[in-house]
Amino acid sequence: MTDLLWPGDQRAGSCCSDAAVLDAMLLVELTWLDVLAEFGVLPVEALAGLEFTADLDAVAEAAEQSGNPVSGLVDALRAHCAATHPVAAHWLHRGLTSQDVLDTALMLCVREAGNRVQRSLRTQAKRLAELTRTHRGTVAVARTLGRPALPTTFGLTAASWLDGVLDAADDLDVALRQLPLQVGGAAGTLAGLAELLGGPRDVVEATERLARALGLVARPPWHTQRRPITRIGDALTACTDTWGRIADDVLLRSRPEFGELSEASVAGRGGSSTLPGKENPVLAVLIRRAALSAPGLAAQLHLAAANAVDERSDGAWHTEWAPLRALARRAVVAAEQTAELLDGLVVHAEWMHANAEAASEALLAERSAMRALLGLAEEPAGVSDYLGATDALIDAALARAAQYIGEEHP
Amino acid sequence: MTDLLWPGDQRAGSCCSDAAVLDAMLLVELTWLDVLAEFGVLPVEALAGLEFTADLDAVAEAAEQSGNPVSGLVDALRAHCAATHPVAAHWLHRGLTSQDVLDTALMLCVREAGNRVQRSLRTQAKRLAELTRTHRGTVAVARTLGRPALPTTFGLTAASWLDGVLDAADDLDVALRQLPLQVGGAAGTLAGLAELLGGPRDVVEATERLARALGLVARPPWHTQRRPITRIGDALTACTDTWGRIADDVLLRSRPEFGELSEASVAGRGGSSTLPGKENPVLAVLIRRAALSAPGLAAQLHLAAANAVDERSDGAWHTEWAPLRALARRAVVAAEQTAELLDGLVVHAEWMHANAEAASEALLAERSAMRALLGLAEEPAGVSDYLGATDALIDAALARAAQYIGEEHP
Amino acid sequence: MTDLLWPGDQRAGSCCSDAAVLDAMLLVELTWLDVLAEFGVLPVEALAGLEFTADLDAVAEAAEQSGNPVSGLVDALRAHCAATHPVAAHWLHRGLTSQDVLDTALMLCVREAGNRVQRSLRTQAKRLAELTRTHRGTVAVARTLGRPALPTTFGLTAASWLDGVLDAADDLDVALRQLPLQVGGAAGTLAGLAELLGGPRDVVEATERLARALGLVARPPWHTQRRPITRIGDALTACTDTWGRIADDVLLRSRPEFGELSEASVAGRGGSSTLPGKENPVLAVLIRRAALSAPGLAAQLHLAAANAVDERSDGAWHTEWAPLRALARRAVVAAEQTAELLDGLVVHAEWMHANAEAASEALLAERSAMRALLGLAEEPAGVSDYLGATDALIDAALARAAQYIGEEHP
Amino acid sequence: MTDLLWPGDQRAGSCCSDAAVLDAMLLVELTWLDVLAEFGVLPVEALAGLEFTADLDAVAEAAEQSGNPVSGLVDALRAHCAATHPVAAHWLHRGLTSQDVLDTALMLCVREAGNRVQRSLRTQAKRLAELTRTHRGTVAVARTLGRPALPTTFGLTAASWLDGVLDAADDLDVALRQLPLQVGGAAGTLAGLAELLGGPRDVVEATERLARALGLVARPPWHTQRRPITRIGDALTACTDTWGRIADDVLLRSRPEFGELSEASVAGRGGSSTLPGKENPVLAVLIRRAALSAPGLAAQLHLAAANAVDERSDGAWHTEWAPLRALARRAVVAAEQTAELLDGLVVHAEWMHANAEAASEALLAERSAMRALLGLAEEPAGVSDYLGATDALIDAALARAAQYIGEEHP
Repeated sequence: MTDLLWPGDQRAGSCCSDAAVLDAMLLVELTWLDVLAEFGVLPVEALAGLEFTADLDAVAEAAEQSGNPVSGLVDALRAHCAATHPVAAHWLHRGLTSQDVLDTALMLCVREAGNRVQRSLRTQAKRLAELTRTHRGTVAVARTLGRPALPTTFGLTAASWLDGVLDAADDLDVALRQLPLQVGGAAGTLAGLAELLGGPRDVVEATERLARALGLVARPPWHTQRRPITRIGDALTACTDTWGRIADDVLLRSRPEFGELSEASVAGRGGSSTLPGKENPVLAVLIRRAALSAPGLAAQLHLAAANAVDERSDGAWHTEWAPLRALARRAVVAAEQTAELLDGLVVHAEWMHANAEAASEALLAERSAMRALLGLAEEPAGVSDYLGATDALIDAALARAAQYIGEEHP
Repeated sequence: MTDLLWPGDQRAGSCCSDAAVLDAMLLVELTWLDVLAEFGVLPVEALAGLEFTADLDAVAEAAEQSGNPVSGLVDALRAHCAATHPVAAHWLHRGLTSQDVLDTALMLCVREAGNRVQRSLRTQAKRLAELTRTHRGTVAVARTLGRPALPTTFGLTAASWLDGVLDAADDLDVALRQLPLQVGGAAGTLAGLAELLGGPRDVVEATERLARALGLVARPPWHTQRRPITRIGDALTACTDTWGRIADDVLLRSRPEFGELSEASVAGRGGSSTLPGKENPVLAVLIRRAALSAPGLAAQLHLAAANAVDERSDGAWHTEWAPLRALARRAVVAAEQTAELLDGLVVHAEWMHANAEAASEALLAERSAMRALLGLAEEPAGVSDYLGATDALIDAALARAAQYIGEEHP
Repeated sequence: MTDLLWPGDQRAGSCCSDAAVLDAMLLVELTWLDVLAEFGVLPVEALAGLEFTADLDAVAEAAEQSGNPVSGLVDALRAHCAATHPVAAHWLHRGLTSQDVLDTALMLCVREAGNRVQRSLRTQAKRLAELTRTHRGTVAVARTLGRPALPTTFGLTAASWLDGVLDAADDLDVALRQLPLQVGGAAGTLAGLAELLGGPRDVVEATERLARALGLVARPPWHTQRRPITRIGDALTACTDTWGRIADDVLLRSRPEFGELSEASVAGRGGSSTLPGKENPVLAVLIRRAALSAPGLAAQLHLAAANAVDERSDGAWHTEWAPLRALARRAVVAAEQTAELLDGLVVHAEWMHANAEAASEALLAERSAMRALLGLAEEPAGVSDYLGATDALIDAALARAAQYIGEEHP
Repeated sequence: MTDLLWPGDQRAGSCCSDAAVLDAMLLVELTWLDVLAEFGVLPVEALAGLEFTADLDAVAEAAEQSGNPVSGLVDALRAHCAATHPVAAHWLHRGLTSQDVLDTALMLCVREAGNRVQRSLRTQAKRLAELTRTHRGTVAVARTLGRPALPTTFGLTAASWLDGVLDAADDLDVALRQLPLQVGGAAGTLAGLAELLGGPRDVVEATERLARALGLVARPPWHTQRRPITRIGDALTACTDTWGRIADDVLLRSRPEFGELSEASVAGRGGSSTLPGKENPVLAVLIRRAALSAPGLAAQLHLAAANAVDERSDGAWHTEWAPLRALARRAVVAAEQTAELLDGLVVHAEWMHANAEAASEALLAERSAMRALLGLAEEPAGVSDYLGATDALIDAALARAAQYIGEEHP
């Protein structure tokens, strides 16, 4: 599976694909049967050998009938196992509602995406720490508003990219740790489940059991309280934001007029359909694409939250699925592209230095002004003589990175 | 092909699918070879029996290498026909650039989508004209800010929906008539083509020939002048806006507390996974979903236009493809859902009337106030006595519709 | 009046300001009284010497009470003229609703903004035609994906900018010509007006009279059919898109590493708060800002249209006012900044040429490949020898511009 | 100061107003002088009696010259105190850059807004806990997709609203605790400051001193690492999302066809300009407006982050200011409107009950189905007999609220 109009999409593999969402829905239904059995609704033996499969196309097509893919799936599963596991067929999905299954399945899919992104952020952070260390002394032009401003080092640029990656990782971690189970029953009262369990006494415990089994956080039904969705969307967008900034810097500084950075030269990559010898900065282009695309998707999730109404929204909920999936899947792709971009990034220290020398008058203008303010005599200086606190800032970034890299992560 | 997370997606069939985009790219390449042959670059006979096919997955996967799906496709096609049509393989794609092929292919796909939407708008307009006529006298509550305001007729509501459909159709028509060919060569100068044709003399004529062959409008290269993209995006969003409003009205007024409208009762549709007997307003829900989702997609296209730079953008261009396709495909789905919704719409005139009677005091408050202002005596009146210019407004809407419906359309 | 956080805001003057919107509302109310008098509701003499003013702060503060600024204004106006013009006070606003007044007032304000933008587009087009002509032969690097691609001329770049300006002007013209009056009465039935006029017979004529008096287009009530709003929003965004592209090119090519363009050097402009001698490309920065900001505003208008419900929306309508005003006002500012940017744009033809020479190998790679394909011998060539159809494309752009500039415009 | 087109704007008072931003910039400059004096750059006495004021209009107008309001302000302040405090004038702003001052000033303004929102969330939470307790037993219709689904209690609805408010409060708290100082000097190297302090040794300590003095968090320069901006934007939008949902429920359930809720009846509020006796749900309308408007603003902040480049962005940075201010200010307004809405909310328990009775067949359909599945006999039941775990869910919400309300907050 790949997407012709989102080059690189294959990097995400099946993550958050239709098939993965379907599998996650099957897992939710199956695990729920386990929980019902644990709580005595049906005998555990009735589930022996039970496995679920479903025809994706049929489920997808049937989804229009009920407005979501769950009802048709439940019908298909009941038919599927009616002969071999009639008791399971009888109790399948009881106590749940469509939104329980789909919301939970999406959380499982998003978790996989988030975990992949986390691993990639860790790889990026390691590489950026290395670039920061290596280029601590690589003098370069700091530019503001498109103009040379001060001397800096490329190490400090890498440290600032690193700072962004660490912020993204921290916030994504918080969001992933809060990914919740959704179980509320038909309208958030858990009434069906209470009926099955002979009263409300064990209801909350049963939902907690499901949460533990799926590795999600138990919380009250959030059918129309959608912060769980927007929170993960915001965190993923913070990731693409930070990669977008890296890509923007690479795109600019790898232009031949700058010559300061290059993407790794990879056979067959970056070519033009008509211009021989062209090497386009493909990874950076595709990362930038993802970064420019994500904010609108995250906004769509907030809009769904703001339009929520009743105990299930009549349309707003339905707007979440496509952008949430796109955000997650594209974040996985962009994460890996960024890791690869950084891994192969070629730093032309000599060009950075040459550019700095060429702009030295502008880069040292503040220094001269400062010295005049201080009443100090002019004295000859080079661009390396006005690097301010770059070392201290680099040390701080490396210390933060070391702590992050040293931590245990899933 | 369908999309699990966009119920109803199958209505669009292959329109704007990966396969359709690929086919359109093949058509562009093949037709361009015809043009080159017409202009003597290669002998016409060299194209005899030439047909193009390509492996979609392979092309999609290769797209990451060059950042778009064209380069890999050209390589594959050259390899594909090298043995049987070596001359064609030699001249394939010459004079074009990747963006020429992809932009043009997307225009062809969007045109198909737009034409389907146009046909659906026409169907909707006919049905709305019928509803307008039928319910010219069906008194109902006009509500503002969620409160009863005045008496109106459902015919006037239908007339206003119709007005929206006609505006959408007009604007879409304008946009579709302007859908352009993209041919500029590697960087918008048409230099490669000029070289092929032995000078710039026939260059413009050759591009016009291609435009005619493909049924698109010839215009100067628009590699980074993206109004053609935003214009069609705006027009499609105007369509989903107007359907969204219809859906919002249906969703509200089909609530049992209102009882004024119902979606057609269709066996198997609108059921719940847990609540027996529930009939959810599925079409309206899915239409509303599309309407809430489109503005962000159209904004993404404008953002790409605003971020355009150089003779081809390094990332902005790449952000257009997915939202343009989504807009087009979802518009086709929503168009047909709206047509079906309207076709089966059940108008509970008796409930409308009962609701109006129940609110008559509020609905006639302005009338009393007006009469007092005019110094007229109070006199008993019913809700039918204060319908203002509803008849004239209905006549005007029907006249506009009649003209539209009577026109020849593609 | 200016906005600290939108530098350059003062260029828009009072256009679409709170005061201007208030004035427009006063104009609508006053002109409506004229119409009522013409149709005999009140004697014309009752309006002799009538002038309206209102305290802006008081009206703004009172707006929360009814959710929009009109109700409070009407109360204030009635109080204001009760003593001097009691008959006018008696008939003031009768037949209208709040939305009639505010929608119409906003159309008047937007029209002023649109007209200012149109004049600016005309100025831009003239200047761009001049740049196109002047630099028809100024060879430069055409860049795609941030890499040198082909030789071009700066004249062709200017021609493409011009093409964007002309598209924007055309579409804005269409939108401005359709700016409508809003008159529907309390809930779109014109019932109050019919009561005032003794029946529905003259109702439509009265609204047409008001439309003519205000220079707006008569159309059926569009309280919840919001295409008139989204249409002008889309057209204004098409303007900022095209200016954004120009700014992006200027920002890049005025970087010292390119040296190809400069903003005019203006005393006191572009300085830094700490770096002596810095000349920031301020106009281009601020234009780019506007371009990146507009798509989200236009999307907000579409979202309001998609969320419309009933005969007046309970919240969606209210979301339109701020973004519509921001779009209009910022478009005026950006239009004038773009005109000024272009007027003063310094084209460093010698640097363009030098950059092209430096990149000549890359720029001529396609030519060599083409000649090889054609079986032609290699022959020495310069960047000027591979300009393709630049001349023809420039001629076409100039012809389109000449037609546009020659037309009569308001 | 108020905004005619954002009714209720006056509730925010001067929070984040132009004047407040200016004051915050003055505070930053003045406090920085203190820090410089502490570190020996200038004598402490040189600051005795120093106060800063500036002409807002002049500063705003001058902002176009440098693209931001700081440079002009610094010039004005130097001129302002040159005579009375020449030493202060000499050292004013030294070591800082425009972005340091504006970013920090905006953080101060946003903090004030955030703190006001926090206080309001606390008020809302208290009121919602009260509503939850009071209506624990108030049976009502739970609706999904616009249809009656199950019986619930209004207490559970209030508990779910409360859950949303607590999520918003938690996330806002996290964001507010991270609001950072911005000090990086001209290009993020702190070179100017190092020069002033005779070397980089004390540089970081000096910035930490400023952070403490202003109550902000010290962190590395984030001129183009914009997560601090997007994080607070996301958190504020999570607030408006949750209020939007409350407003949506109120708007729907206060319609006369439902009759279940009312806004408090306040003299002079909710009236129409033409319909006597109308009571529009003004607060809910205006809250919904804010909720529908916020996601696009937050997306604009992410877009700026994704477009960041160099050591200061050439346009992206400039797009942050207006939406950040609008988000903050509108959040304050909506927070207080929501608190007032909830405070005065009238719950028509008898109508809720009557609606539930009227829909009892639908509401009990799942119960019958469950009993049939369980092999239990049908038995007569009322809507109160199928409330599931509403009590347990309410207890959980109240426990969470109690903990939140009991905590110390700023």
